[in-house]
Amino acid sequence: MNQFMPNWLKQRAELTPDRLAIKTDKEMLSFQQLHTRVKQRAHLLSLSGVESGHHTAILMKNSIEMVETIYAVMSIGAVAVMLNTRLSDHELEWQVLDVEAVHIISNQEYLGKINGLKDKKNIIVSEQIHQVNDEVQSFINVDGEYTPEQVATIMYTSGTTGNPKGVMQTFGNHWSSAIGSALNLGLQSNDRWLLAVPLFHISGLSILMRSVIYGMGIILLERFDANKMNDAIIQDKVTIVSVVTTMLQQMLEKLDKQQYPDSFRCMLAGGGPVPKSLLEECQTRQIPVYQTYGMTETSSQVVTLTPEHSMKKLGSAGKPLFSCQIKIVKDGKECLANEEGEILVKGPNITKGYWKRTKATEEAIQDGWLHTGDQGYKDDDGFLFVLDRRSDLIISGGENVYPAEIEATLLSHPKIRDAGIVGVEDEKWGQTPYAFVVLHEELSKIELVEYCKERLAAYKVPKDFKVIEELPRNASNKLLRRELKDWLNKG
Amino acid sequence: MNQFMPNWLKQRAELTPDRLAIKTDKEMLSFQQLHTRVKQRAHLLSLSGVESGHHTAILMKNSIEMVETIYAVMSIGAVAVMLNTRLSDHELEWQVLDVEAVHIISNQEYLGKINGLKDKKNIIVSEQIHQVNDEVQSFINVDGEYTPEQVATIMYTSGTTGNPKGVMQTFGNHWSSAIGSALNLGLQSNDRWLLAVPLFHISGLSILMRSVIYGMGIILLERFDANKMNDAIIQDKVTIVSVVTTMLQQMLEKLDKQQYPDSFRCMLAGGGPVPKSLLEECQTRQIPVYQTYGMTETSSQVVTLTPEHSMKKLGSAGKPLFSCQIKIVKDGKECLANEEGEILVKGPNITKGYWKRTKATEEAIQDGWLHTGDQGYKDDDGFLFVLDRRSDLIISGGENVYPAEIEATLLSHPKIRDAGIVGVEDEKWGQTPYAFVVLHEELSKIELVEYCKERLAAYKVPKDFKVIEELPRNASNKLLRRELKDWLNKG
Repeated sequence: MNQFMPNWLKQRAELTPDRLAIKTDKEMLSFQQLHTRVKQRAHLLSLSGVESGHHTAILMKNSIEMVETIYAVMSIGAVAVMLNTRLSDHELEWQVLDVEAVHIISNQEYLGKINGLKDKKNIIVSEQIHQVNDEVQSFINVDGEYTPEQVATIMYTSGTTGNPKGVMQTFGNHWSSAIGSALNLGLQSNDRWLLAVPLFHISGLSILMRSVIYGMGIILLERFDANKMNDAIIQDKVTIVSVVTTMLQQMLEKLDKQQYPDSFRCMLAGGGPVPKSLLEECQTRQIPVYQTYGMTETSSQVVTLTPEHSMKKLGSAGKPLFSCQIKIVKDGKECLANEEGEILVKGPNITKGYWKRTKATEEAIQDGWLHTGDQGYKDDDGFLFVLDRRSDLIISGGENVYPAEIEATLLSHPKIRDAGIVGVEDEKWGQTPYAFVVLHEELSKIELVEYCKERLAAYKVPKDFKVIEELPRNASNKLLRRELKDWLNKG
Repeated sequence: MNQFMPNWLKQRAELTPDRLAIKTDKEMLSFQQLHTRVKQRAHLLSLSGVESGHHTAILMKNSIEMVETIYAVMSIGAVAVMLNTRLSDHELEWQVLDVEAVHIISNQEYLGKINGLKDKKNIIVSEQIHQVNDEVQSFINVDGEYTPEQVATIMYTSGTTGNPKGVMQTFGNHWSSAIGSALNLGLQSNDRWLLAVPLFHISGLSILMRSVIYGMGIILLERFDANKMNDAIIQDKVTIVSVVTTMLQQMLEKLDKQQYPDSFRCMLAGGGPVPKSLLEECQTRQIPVYQTYGMTETSSQVVTLTPEHSMKKLGSAGKPLFSCQIKIVKDGKECLANEEGEILVKGPNITKGYWKRTKATEEAIQDGWLHTGDQGYKDDDGFLFVLDRRSDLIISGGENVYPAEIEATLLSHPKIRDAGIVGVEDEKWGQTPYAFVVLHEELSKIELVEYCKERLAAYKVPKDFKVIEELPRNASNKLLRRELKDWLNKG
C-alpha cells in the first residue's frame, strides 16, 4: 500500500484554492494565499539554515505568522517543536536543550525568556522574517511528500517522574486524529472551527491539522476572550468550538440571554470533566456539548460522546473514535463493565513514543496499548467515564500541572527539606496547585512564590502552602497524596 | 504508528448500534442487528470450512444476504473474491481456478453457471445457510483486527492482454477510498447512500465500505430500476446516489416533471464520461452531478469534481481526492497543462497488485504510480479531462468490455483466422462491441453469436460482425483499431 501523501497545504491549495483557510481580526486568507506565504516563509527559514530533519523550536503566540511558521517548518521537512509560551526561562531552556533544537523561532516578546540560550542556539525572530516578492517562490521546493511514520511535531508533557518528555506526533498520528474526529462529528461544507486554545497545545494544533485536511476555515484568536468567542459564533458563523470548562463557563456568563445561531453545531469540551451543572445549563440553552477525552500522546481526542448520546449520558466522555479502542485494566486483567481500573487506549493516533526516552516509551506503550495512568470505567453500554486523570494530575484552566515537577523545583530550594503538591478546587480554574513543605529553616510565602515564579510557569506556582513536620509516605517511600488531600479538606 | 484497526462492523455496532445500516424493500437492519446476523453467518461459514487466509468466492446478487456474506468472510479473515454474476460459465470457471478459491458461496439461481466446478470446489448455497439461535454467537470470534496491508477483496478486471487479472484490494485501500470520498463530499448525519450498482463491482462494494466506516445507512436495490431509484430518493430521503450514464438518463425520463427533495445532495456519476447534454439537463433540474473517475485498481473514485466546480467545469472528472495525486505522462515525460498523455495516479487507495501476476503488477505500478492506460490532460487550473479510457476499452452500460478478451474467444473458433473488436455507439448502453473477422470458411451470424454466448457474458457478445480480407496492423503487428473504427464510420 502506497503510504506517501502530498504536502497537505500544497494539495489543499491546489484542490480548493479559494476556500477560506484562516481569519483573524486583522485579515483573511484563502488556502492559496496562505500557501503562497508559507512558501515564502519556508524559503526564508531555509536561508536561515533550517533543514529537513532538524528539530526547530517554535515559541510564538497564536497568529497567522505562527500558522505560517508551523506549515513552513513542516514543508521543509523539519520537526516543529511546540513550546508553551507560559513556561519559565528555566523550563524553556531545559526543553530546547533536551530536544536538541537547532533553531528557535520566537516572537519578539518572548526573547527575554530565551536569553540564556542565545549563545547556544540559532534564534530567528519571527517579526524579522520579511515577506519577499513572488519571484522567490520558484526557488523553493515544497513538493516533498509526507509519510505516516515521519515525525511532524514534538510537544513536551510531564508525567509522574518530574522532567517533561517530548511526545513525538507523526504525520500519520495527526492524519488519523483528524479523520477520526470527522467520522464522529461529520464534515459539512459550511464548517468553521473557532481556535482560541493555544496552537502549542495539541488541542489547538489539531484544529489546524483538521483545517488543512478537511479544507475547512478556522477563526483564530490570539487568546481566549469570552466576548470575542461569542461574537465569532454569532457573526462569523462558526460551527464548532474547542473549549475547556473555564472557557465555557465564562462564555455562557457573557452570552447572557443571547442565543447561538442554528449553524453552531458542536462545543467540543476537553481538558478534564465538565461539571454536571454546566452541562445541564447548556442543555437548557440548546448548546450541544460533546465531552471528549484525549491527551498529547493521542494527538487530541480519543474518546468523544457521539451526537445521539450527548444528552443521555451526561458526564461520560463517550465512546472511542472509529479507529480507536479502549480497555480498562486492573492488576493486569481487563475489567468488567462498571469496574474501575486504568484506562488503556490504542489506535493510529497514538504517539510513536517519547523523544530519547526508550524506557519511558516501552513502559507507556505495550502491544500498541497506551497506559494513560488515568482511572475510569466503562458502563454497561460501553461508555467511558473518566474518574481521575493520572491520580496526581492537576488540571488548571485546561493546562496540565504535574505535581512531581513542582515538587522537584521546591526541593531545589536550600530551605526546603521535603515537598508534596496536591490540587485544590478553584472556582475559576477548576484546580490550582497547593504545597505541603517540610523546612530546614523558616521560609516566607513571598520567598517561596518568588522562587517558583522564576523557575515555573505562573499556572504551576502553588497558590498557598502549609508547613508540616513530615510528609505522609508509604513503606516504599511513595508520597500518599490522598492523605494530603484529606488533611486539606479537614482544614 | 499503530496500524491495527478493530473489525469495522463490530466497532460500528458498538459505537452506533441503533443507526440504520441497511434497508431493502423487504426489511431494515440497524448496525447491531446486521452484526448479529453476520456473527451467525460467520459461524456457519466456518463450520463449512471457511478459514482465515482462504480465498472465498462470492457469486450472489445484491441482497442483505450478500452483504452478510461479505462481512462474514471478512470477519473470518478470509479474502472475498467478488464474482460478476453476468459472466459466462467459462469465464467464472477460469476466475475461480485462477484465484485458487477454496469455497464458492452462491445463490441458488447461479448454481447452473458453476456446474463444471462442483467436483473441484466446495460450493455453499447461500439459501441453505440457515439462521441459528443466539447462543451460537458466543462460539464465534470476530475480534480479529484488520491491518492496512491485509487483502480484503479480489475483483477481476481484464486488460489489453486477454485474460482477466485479480485486483487485490486491501483493508487500507478500502479505508483510504472511503476517507478520500468523505473529505471531498462531506459527511452528514442524515446521509443515506442508494446502492443499485452491483456489489461485485467496486462501485457497489465501496458504498458498503463507506456505510460501515461512516456509520451511514444504505438503501439497497437488487438491480437498477429507474422508478425505484426515484422513489428511494424522494421517499427514503436518500442523499447520495452512485450511477452510470445510462442509469441517470432513465431516471430523468421517469422522473418527468417531479423534483428531487432538497435533502438529495449528490449524484455521483462514474463508469465513463457523462454527455454534456445530460449534464446540462441536470443543471436545469438542479440535480448536483459529481463526475468521477476511478477503476477497480483504485478501489473506486480517485478523481472527483468538488462541489464548487461541478457546474463551472462541465465534462471534467475533477481533481484528485485529498490523499491522491495525478500526472499526465507522454514518452516518459510529464506533460504541461492542456497536453495529452497517459493518466498516472498515486495514493493509498491504489491496489497492492494483481494476484499471482508479478510482472503485470510491476508494469502497471512503478514508484507508486499506477499507469492507467487512459488518455487525458489537465487544464490550466489542474482539472483532469479524461479523453479516452484505455484506447481500446469499451464501456457498455457501466461494464468494462476489453476487446482483447472477445478477440481471444473469437480466435478459438475453428472457422475464424483473425479477429478485431471495436466499440460502436449505442443509444441505450453508450457503446457495444462490434467484430471484424477474417475467416477460414463461411460462418453465420447465429453461429458466431451462439459461440460467444456460451463463453462470454451477454454484454460482451458482439452485436454484429463484418467479414474482411485482412485486419489492419502496423509493422510490429499491432492491431490498428482506429482504422477499424474509420471503416465502420464510413459504412
